[in-house]
Amino acid sequence: MSEITRADGRSPGDLRPITIERGWSAQAEGSALISFGGTRVLCTASFTNGVPRWLTGKGKGWITAEYAMLPRATNDRNDRESVKGRIGGRTHEISRLIGRALRAVVDTKALGENTIVIDCDVLQADGGTRTAAITGAYVALADAIEWGRAKKFIAQRATPLIDSVSAVSVGIVDGEPLLDLAYVEDVRAETDMNVVVTGRGFFVEVQGTAEGAPFDKRELDALLDLAVAGCADLRDIQTAALAPNED
Amino acid sequence: MSEITRADGRSPGDLRPITIERGWSAQAEGSALISFGGTRVLCTASFTNGVPRWLTGKGKGWITAEYAMLPRATNDRNDRESVKGRIGGRTHEISRLIGRALRAVVDTKALGENTIVIDCDVLQADGGTRTAAITGAYVALADAIEWGRAKKFIAQRATPLIDSVSAVSVGIVDGEPLLDLAYVEDVRAETDMNVVVTGRGFFVEVQGTAEGAPFDKRELDALLDLAVAGCADLRDIQTAALAPNED
Amino acid sequence: MSEITRADGRSPGDLRPITIERGWSAQAEGSALISFGGTRVLCTASFTNGVPRWLTGKGKGWITAEYAMLPRATNDRNDRESVKGRIGGRTHEISRLIGRALRAVVDTKALGENTIVIDCDVLQADGGTRTAAITGAYVALADAIEWGRAKKFIAQRATPLIDSVSAVSVGIVDGEPLLDLAYVEDVRAETDMNVVVTGRGFFVEVQGTAEGAPFDKRELDALLDLAVAGCADLRDIQTAALAPNED
Amino acid sequence: MSEITRADGRSPGDLRPITIERGWSAQAEGSALISFGGTRVLCTASFTNGVPRWLTGKGKGWITAEYAMLPRATNDRNDRESVKGRIGGRTHEISRLIGRALRAVVDTKALGENTIVIDCDVLQADGGTRTAAITGAYVALADAIEWGRAKKFIAQRATPLIDSVSAVSVGIVDGEPLLDLAYVEDVRAETDMNVVVTGRGFFVEVQGTAEGAPFDKRELDALLDLAVAGCADLRDIQTAALAPNED
Amino acid sequence: MSEITRADGRSPGDLRPITIERGWSAQAEGSALISFGGTRVLCTASFTNGVPRWLTGKGKGWITAEYAMLPRATNDRNDRESVKGRIGGRTHEISRLIGRALRAVVDTKALGENTIVIDCDVLQADGGTRTAAITGAYVALADAIEWGRAKKFIAQRATPLIDSVSAVSVGIVDGEPLLDLAYVEDVRAETDMNVVVTGRGFFVEVQGTAEGAPFDKRELDALLDLAVAGCADLRDIQTAALAPNED
Amino acid sequence: MSEITRADGRSPGDLRPITIERGWSAQAEGSALISFGGTRVLCTASFTNGVPRWLTGKGKGWITAEYAMLPRATNDRNDRESVKGRIGGRTHEISRLIGRALRAVVDTKALGENTIVIDCDVLQADGGTRTAAITGAYVALADAIEWGRAKKFIAQRATPLIDSVSAVSVGIVDGEPLLDLAYVEDVRAETDMNVVVTGRGFFVEVQGTAEGAPFDKRELDALLDLAVAGCADLRDIQTAALAPNED
Repeated sequence: MSEITRADGRSPGDLRPITIERGWSAQAEGSALISFGGTRVLCTASFTNGVPRWLTGKGKGWITAEYAMLPRATNDRNDRESVKGRIGGRTHEISRLIGRALRAVVDTKALGENTIVIDCDVLQADGGTRTAAITGAYVALADAIEWGRAKKFIAQRATPLIDSVSAVSVGIVDGEPLLDLAYVEDVRAETDMNVVVTGRGFFVEVQGTAEGAPFDKRELDALLDLAVAGCADLRDIQTAALAPNED
Repeated sequence: MSEITRADGRSPGDLRPITIERGWSAQAEGSALISFGGTRVLCTASFTNGVPRWLTGKGKGWITAEYAMLPRATNDRNDRESVKGRIGGRTHEISRLIGRALRAVVDTKALGENTIVIDCDVLQADGGTRTAAITGAYVALADAIEWGRAKKFIAQRATPLIDSVSAVSVGIVDGEPLLDLAYVEDVRAETDMNVVVTGRGFFVEVQGTAEGAPFDKRELDALLDLAVAGCADLRDIQTAALAPNED
Repeated sequence: MSEITRADGRSPGDLRPITIERGWSAQAEGSALISFGGTRVLCTASFTNGVPRWLTGKGKGWITAEYAMLPRATNDRNDRESVKGRIGGRTHEISRLIGRALRAVVDTKALGENTIVIDCDVLQADGGTRTAAITGAYVALADAIEWGRAKKFIAQRATPLIDSVSAVSVGIVDGEPLLDLAYVEDVRAETDMNVVVTGRGFFVEVQGTAEGAPFDKRELDALLDLAVAGCADLRDIQTAALAPNED
Repeated sequence: MSEITRADGRSPGDLRPITIERGWSAQAEGSALISFGGTRVLCTASFTNGVPRWLTGKGKGWITAEYAMLPRATNDRNDRESVKGRIGGRTHEISRLIGRALRAVVDTKALGENTIVIDCDVLQADGGTRTAAITGAYVALADAIEWGRAKKFIAQRATPLIDSVSAVSVGIVDGEPLLDLAYVEDVRAETDMNVVVTGRGFFVEVQGTAEGAPFDKRELDALLDLAVAGCADLRDIQTAALAPNED
Repeated sequence: MSEITRADGRSPGDLRPITIERGWSAQAEGSALISFGGTRVLCTASFTNGVPRWLTGKGKGWITAEYAMLPRATNDRNDRESVKGRIGGRTHEISRLIGRALRAVVDTKALGENTIVIDCDVLQADGGTRTAAITGAYVALADAIEWGRAKKFIAQRATPLIDSVSAVSVGIVDGEPLLDLAYVEDVRAETDMNVVVTGRGFFVEVQGTAEGAPFDKRELDALLDLAVAGCADLRDIQTAALAPNED
Repeated sequence: MSEITRADGRSPGDLRPITIERGWSAQAEGSALISFGGTRVLCTASFTNGVPRWLTGKGKGWITAEYAMLPRATNDRNDRESVKGRIGGRTHEISRLIGRALRAVVDTKALGENTIVIDCDVLQADGGTRTAAITGAYVALADAIEWGRAKKFIAQRATPLIDSVSAVSVGIVDGEPLLDLAYVEDVRAETDMNVVVTGRGFFVEVQGTAEGAPFDKRELDALLDLAVAGCADLRDIQTAALAPNED
């Protein structure tokens, strides 16, 4: 890795300061206020006994996610999607991504006929909102599952969580691969990639996009290496947040 | 006032613990995270130089507000209004109330041709979300106006804020008038009233509704007295939050 | 009361000419075309045996209301809300107000598992449309309840209507409290208040708003006195309209 | 014509009682409350000087129409289209029909760059709402044009109305061609036709639909004859309503 | 018929070249890609065993149709109705017309409790899209019914199709009645008529509109004669397309 | 590569039969009907001189794309998004993907202030609709750019197309990496990846998702190798379709 120093003083392979306030919401069955630097996302998990009608009787649970941004989470205010009367493409796409990421580490048979809805609301946005959302959502999800177990909606010996999951962005800025892009870096990135990795180091999603010049296999590999290392760090932070003495 | 003690130990004329985290958002021109007990509302004020087309050239500013609730701010999850594709009646009504309350203390001529949009997003709801929103929105508004003055969008000698404004709920529960109802009190109230009062003690809004039995003039007067006293306390808390050493 | 004479020659405490054409619609179970001066509202009550699914089996009825304005009820044509694809905040707010006002005088247990939907469509608007709507809606409601009793959907000895209800606007114009504001008065009012009062003289709703300068307790009391007197007159007009020889 | 007598005592070639209350609305530039028996439609014409942007500078006017039904105009209450958030196919289709019918008798060059919007709101429906709407709309349109002339938005010597227009339904019920179907006849009709005819007897629209068995040329001709005669009567009623001593 | 020759060389009573590619879609139970000259419409028929809830248990089937146009079917691109969030009046009107035309030749008792949804998507538009849609939809419908019979959802001896149906446009251009108008003719037509005729020569729909000057009975008769002859030709083309060796 | 044979007889690294009917639409400035086996997508490119307001005066062009599926493109009929009144998340996501893929090979400065809208409508779906759409859209785009050059909206010497672009799906089925998945393979894939590659072999998008078990780096590399080879074949087919003698 080069000697480059970033605007906020980080090295190319550094995450921004990460904080997770587990149990931020008094009402949700699981919740976490997560920060990736200036990006702050409130993740809540709502547990319901039962599943949507189309899934009833199959002995399987259901997990879904919704992502949204407060109108003034960004530098300029955006109109509310509720006011516009429809949800934009970016919002839909990220909601779907978060849902897939979480479902990848859940054994829905073990979850039983229960539904968990994850809401990720971006309170402040400074790049990497979807990756912060996935990382925080895992913590909220884990607590909601424990809540369901304590309430006996989930069998005592069932282990619905088969792995953990976190996500991070990587990108090439001025020819340099960087981990966990802040907004000012993100807008300048030639290539931008979001990578979702399980606690055991397997890929769940790899979404790379050439914003500027298309990229080659060597660049792709460099980015993936950074992302895998970053997600290993995030996994450790999640583990610490979920440690019993945290509660 | 009677000997009654409430579920949370308050006397009938007590506010819940009120906290205001001024400047919570790094991006908005003014912001405040306000708590009325378990109710937490993030208020941001977005300042734009210029006014909507229909107001252009009249030498006056414009202030508007939008209120919304995160899906899991409440005990049960509510569907997002952006997903439903339309805004409910309650949301509209409260947004309009907040806007009127703020405009009542602003001299739009002194504001000049500037627009301030206030967003009040309820992160956690435990009764009194609209009154917390108004009270916090005033703090965000005051900071946004100072920002506009610092940027010279507002004339140095202009005083757009002609008074302060706060709001509180009052209600009759088991025949007893109570200040600042928590959710468990609100659902049991026979009469429910939201009162918006200026710092100088004048009424901006009086909205009383008989949820159970209709009420008489004597009850109305008792509720108004409680509300005026509560808003005087809120005004002092706002003043403290806006004191220079807070920043 | 002062010597002031209003644009239409009324004294400050006078209602406009009020007319109620009961049974205007041949199809609704109850209906009234009500005029408050130039304001004309067609109120219909639709009776359905049964209640919405979420209320089934609780032994209680349901009453709801919808308010709307024809596009050319006003001086300038407004776009239809059906064409815009969404209902504005004002429409929602008034619909909710009318529903609450009517439910305040109905014993839903006595109504039994029946639903009454009230539609208030403003055919011509000259101020006070919501108060005319509530006053006319009560007449339509009373007839629909009698229809339900005649059809044996409501028990013979049940008395779902526990009181009557009417509403009137009051406001301060040029420092003078006035009853039942016409549109030209309404736009000039410093304070505007809608008051819903039962036949026995209790308050159901008090909604006062400072449009100009905030108001004090003395002004509030003067307005409430005017409103209570006006609603007593409206109650008598409702009673006359509902007298058997009217039919 | 056969000896048949209809449910309401009419002969096959009789119109229902037709009434036109011209100038029913105090606010619109032209208006008429028209009744075809139990069908009552409030038609208003809103005159605006100027045309939509896409028509500006072409020296031509614009006429458009919107049709809607109050929720309880019919025997069972229908949900409001504003509440559903979209306009149904039938509403669209009839709005377009009314607009075409009126434009057929207007010389838009002579109208000048003025816009007239016609609103036809069905207050009570008993068959033939679209034909009543067209017939009443013509009266409202004629008055709006005179208003525009009086205000000098239309040139003194211009004659924007090149003919009058009215409409009537015809249908085959039990093998018998009938004029101006009431609702109970309409639901039983094997063939249903709406015919729009100018004052001079030319066709503007012929819309015939086989609801039951398809029809042949002889039946079509019989229906057209009835319709032409009916529209001639309607033209005379319109002329009487528009006579100066009516105003 | 006159000596006139049209832009594409046709005589006034000529159809454009008509082609029907039966079974174009591998997935639908019936399908046809139909061309009327440059107009190309893909018609699919989707067969479902069962009927909508409101029709259940009545022993009758249900047929409905939806019409839509690809955004670049026309010379200028139109916004998608899915993007606009609502369906235009023209789309609704044509969908309803196609549904009525097909239902006119179906015995829904013989169809049994089965639903057939016809989709008519205009891939390229050059006038007469609704008449091409009806004509092609009949072919798709016939195949879907045979599919339902083969699958034993329809009784072996039942004959749900009681006749065939096709449609064609006619119009008066420069005073001349013409059959099957291409787009360049359609925009110049003084009168435009769509006629739906059964294989046996009965009328299902007659929809004539004066786009320019109103028309008289003689012109109407001339147009109807042309249309009946054109539909007889279309019936023969449909029959050929549905012949067993076509499959 | 293994000996495996797929349901349709292909080897793991084989594309399905690919056909491109360039110029399928007579009206669009560029068009292609592309087939990837049973998947058929109609791609049209609409050229407009000028750009959206927010881009005006920057000397750059704009390219955007919309993807949609006919209701009966699939085995079961889906409701139209225009009827539902909103666009689903999947549709949004794919539209955005296509737009990014095309913009990656366009020099918008060289395009000048022109807008090209690409519509990709799936007429029949059998897996890989988004990759077929991108591959066909490139052909339509290339023709629209040539049209713009011929019309002199694009400078003679400008080369807006800096590379070509195509896309293909790859996935792991039963542990085996396969190229260009048909629908029956897609639903069984453990990992599913869409890869967009330029004619010169650079990546524009890499979107891999673990549908079943997460995947490791070795599997990712195997899939990327297959995709790069498949896109090289698609590039040759595009080149052939765009050869002058094709026109």
